[in-house]
Amino acid sequence: MIPPVSRDQGVKRREDNEIEFSRIVAFSDGVFAIAITLLVLSLDIPEHLHGESLGSALWDQRQDLLAYAISFAVIGRFWVIHHRFFGDVTGFDGRLLALNILYLAWIVLIPFSSEVLGDHGGDTDAIVLYAVNLAAVALLGWVMAFDAHRAGLTTMGASEEREFRLRAFFVALVFLASIPLAFVAPDLAPLVWLVLFLDPTRGLMQRVTSGAGS
Amino acid sequence: MIPPVSRDQGVKRREDNEIEFSRIVAFSDGVFAIAITLLVLSLDIPEHLHGESLGSALWDQRQDLLAYAISFAVIGRFWVIHHRFFGDVTGFDGRLLALNILYLAWIVLIPFSSEVLGDHGGDTDAIVLYAVNLAAVALLGWVMAFDAHRAGLTTMGASEEREFRLRAFFVALVFLASIPLAFVAPDLAPLVWLVLFLDPTRGLMQRVTSGAGS
Amino acid sequence: MIPPVSRDQGVKRREDNEIEFSRIVAFSDGVFAIAITLLVLSLDIPEHLHGESLGSALWDQRQDLLAYAISFAVIGRFWVIHHRFFGDVTGFDGRLLALNILYLAWIVLIPFSSEVLGDHGGDTDAIVLYAVNLAAVALLGWVMAFDAHRAGLTTMGASEEREFRLRAFFVALVFLASIPLAFVAPDLAPLVWLVLFLDPTRGLMQRVTSGAGS
Amino acid sequence: MIPPVSRDQGVKRREDNEIEFSRIVAFSDGVFAIAITLLVLSLDIPEHLHGESLGSALWDQRQDLLAYAISFAVIGRFWVIHHRFFGDVTGFDGRLLALNILYLAWIVLIPFSSEVLGDHGGDTDAIVLYAVNLAAVALLGWVMAFDAHRAGLTTMGASEEREFRLRAFFVALVFLASIPLAFVAPDLAPLVWLVLFLDPTRGLMQRVTSGAGS
Repeated sequence: MIPPVSRDQGVKRREDNEIEFSRIVAFSDGVFAIAITLLVLSLDIPEHLHGESLGSALWDQRQDLLAYAISFAVIGRFWVIHHRFFGDVTGFDGRLLALNILYLAWIVLIPFSSEVLGDHGGDTDAIVLYAVNLAAVALLGWVMAFDAHRAGLTTMGASEEREFRLRAFFVALVFLASIPLAFVAPDLAPLVWLVLFLDPTRGLMQRVTSGAGS
Repeated sequence: MIPPVSRDQGVKRREDNEIEFSRIVAFSDGVFAIAITLLVLSLDIPEHLHGESLGSALWDQRQDLLAYAISFAVIGRFWVIHHRFFGDVTGFDGRLLALNILYLAWIVLIPFSSEVLGDHGGDTDAIVLYAVNLAAVALLGWVMAFDAHRAGLTTMGASEEREFRLRAFFVALVFLASIPLAFVAPDLAPLVWLVLFLDPTRGLMQRVTSGAGS
Repeated sequence: MIPPVSRDQGVKRREDNEIEFSRIVAFSDGVFAIAITLLVLSLDIPEHLHGESLGSALWDQRQDLLAYAISFAVIGRFWVIHHRFFGDVTGFDGRLLALNILYLAWIVLIPFSSEVLGDHGGDTDAIVLYAVNLAAVALLGWVMAFDAHRAGLTTMGASEEREFRLRAFFVALVFLASIPLAFVAPDLAPLVWLVLFLDPTRGLMQRVTSGAGS
Repeated sequence: MIPPVSRDQGVKRREDNEIEFSRIVAFSDGVFAIAITLLVLSLDIPEHLHGESLGSALWDQRQDLLAYAISFAVIGRFWVIHHRFFGDVTGFDGRLLALNILYLAWIVLIPFSSEVLGDHGGDTDAIVLYAVNLAAVALLGWVMAFDAHRAGLTTMGASEEREFRLRAFFVALVFLASIPLAFVAPDLAPLVWLVLFLDPTRGLMQRVTSGAGS
């Protein structure tokens, strides 16, 4: 369906450049690891307790803790997907590097969007910011995978690529779908995201793609 | 005793996926390294000295420094255990990855719990928070090891697995035992944790497990 | 043109010290990854909304977001250059290590300069600080590459070295050129930096260096 | 001179446990990389300019910038030493791991001591804190190396070990010597540290140790 686009010029094969390749992966892992750990900085330490107990001051932060848990799961999920995608990559060029850095720029924004969400829980704007951020990550992940697939830089087969693409669209769709809802019922919008953890794609995927290996 | 549960579907052998496997380990190490280093942010820099000397302002932070020292030792300890466990792992699947990320989410919480403990030393709620956090890490570490062992993803023998489990229970027990004490004598509760550093398990372990290798 | 300077004493060949060499690269990657991720801390979380909506409070930060985007692209670019340079390195000594650490010291300053720029957008001093910081990185990168090339520690050919040098000078020149402009028209000065993303060097390079491989 | 102490029990040879060994090194590198990068957080972003220009507000931070430069050089130096030491290590046990974590705990304290020094430049207590921190790092580095050497876990020869020890003592001595001076002339005490960068040890070392390799 997709005609392979030759980008031979400047493409380095993974097997010939194992160290350079592993640096790309290591750099990405470092960024993921730091971004996921910075989430803890979004939890405020109660400094002055104005008469209330420490326990109730901590309880007031339950929304921050919820945002922490959701964002940790989400970044962890994206890391697993990135991890699996680069396991299939067999070559790289400047363009894949640039797309990967662009992708990471949106990953690193997550601790910011997450803290805004934690501090302004029921606020429409906070939900829109978070949903846009995560939809952007999903779409950029798809662009990166699609581009690498088209340039013949991965071992992904056509059906596998289709599955990957559907999954990315599904994640993006869930976040984008929560945006209009955020204007009507901001308290319900985040519940839409739970669909991601139910992973209904498993069944859907198996029907759409006939027997694609994981 | 424990019937092995086949999870062959989706399991990747370590020897065939050395790079993917080492990424999991590298990601975990990154998270551990960042979490342990973020502990330093819990120490407040005295900005304005209202007549007192800098030395006495620093001395006022001795509780923060103590929390720093305890948490550094504790995260370091958990890293050593994680390090040893993954040295025995021979394969991985999505479930081990998910459990590992859940485990890391609780590791990353430690700098938060530690700073709360340092700022509110004798407070019952701070001790409970810290104890719950660390008991959760110990129990999740056990769940991860038990699950991997049952699925045949490790080289751990049955006696080794029993030792690992006992050790994790011991750590969890020490932290859980300090919770009721925190309500009665909050100043004494943290002293219970010192039992961990005395490592009485060495003798206990040898009696319970008959000659299990380390 | 440049007589090779022998620094055999203390030089370790990469092939004999693969682990030590990869630690240098891993340490550098770690510093790059952390510096690029710390950029997110320059975005302020709106705490108290004095009547205005969260959306407009976030909109007020568009200059911070722009500085974040520029700095992420810039650090990412420098990482790619560093990555490519060390791909050509075949040996190292104490001097290369020292120059690399000096280089990293200026990379780590970028999140600071970037946050100052984001908070004081149209201010001449902020632009000068940022331009000096990035010109220093480009020049130090050139010094490191030139020094390693002269000592025979890289596989770079003469024409490749010339291209690398021209590129570094071009980056430094762009930032230095924006400094006088910052005194006259501070709002226009950052636009000069966009020249970097147009990458006119590609054509220029090909004319200056006759067919140097990438 | 020093009778080798057998710790065969629990010692793992590096060649048989290359992955586990490289994790120890990677974890240490991660901690070093994060600690050195966190130094940038000690630089305050001027938020509100009360009539003064941004340039003069930045100029007021010259002491912070100096502390940043010194600490970056110092942590970089210690990293080089740690890097060189682990290049000689051929085996590890729980004790080396524990000493390494203790060592890292003092490395991670440096950003704290450094920020205190930058904010309270001429203050005796700040100088003492900084000097104690760095002397502790040097001494713990020596203890770790000495202990590993005695247990036969390194390839260091006797003369090399002597050089390593002398060097560590020299560093510790310089910092300890600045402590009494800090009580008499706090402005001069940091100048003593410059001795470290002059590296007089090179000559001294060569006289004391007869022809030890680097």
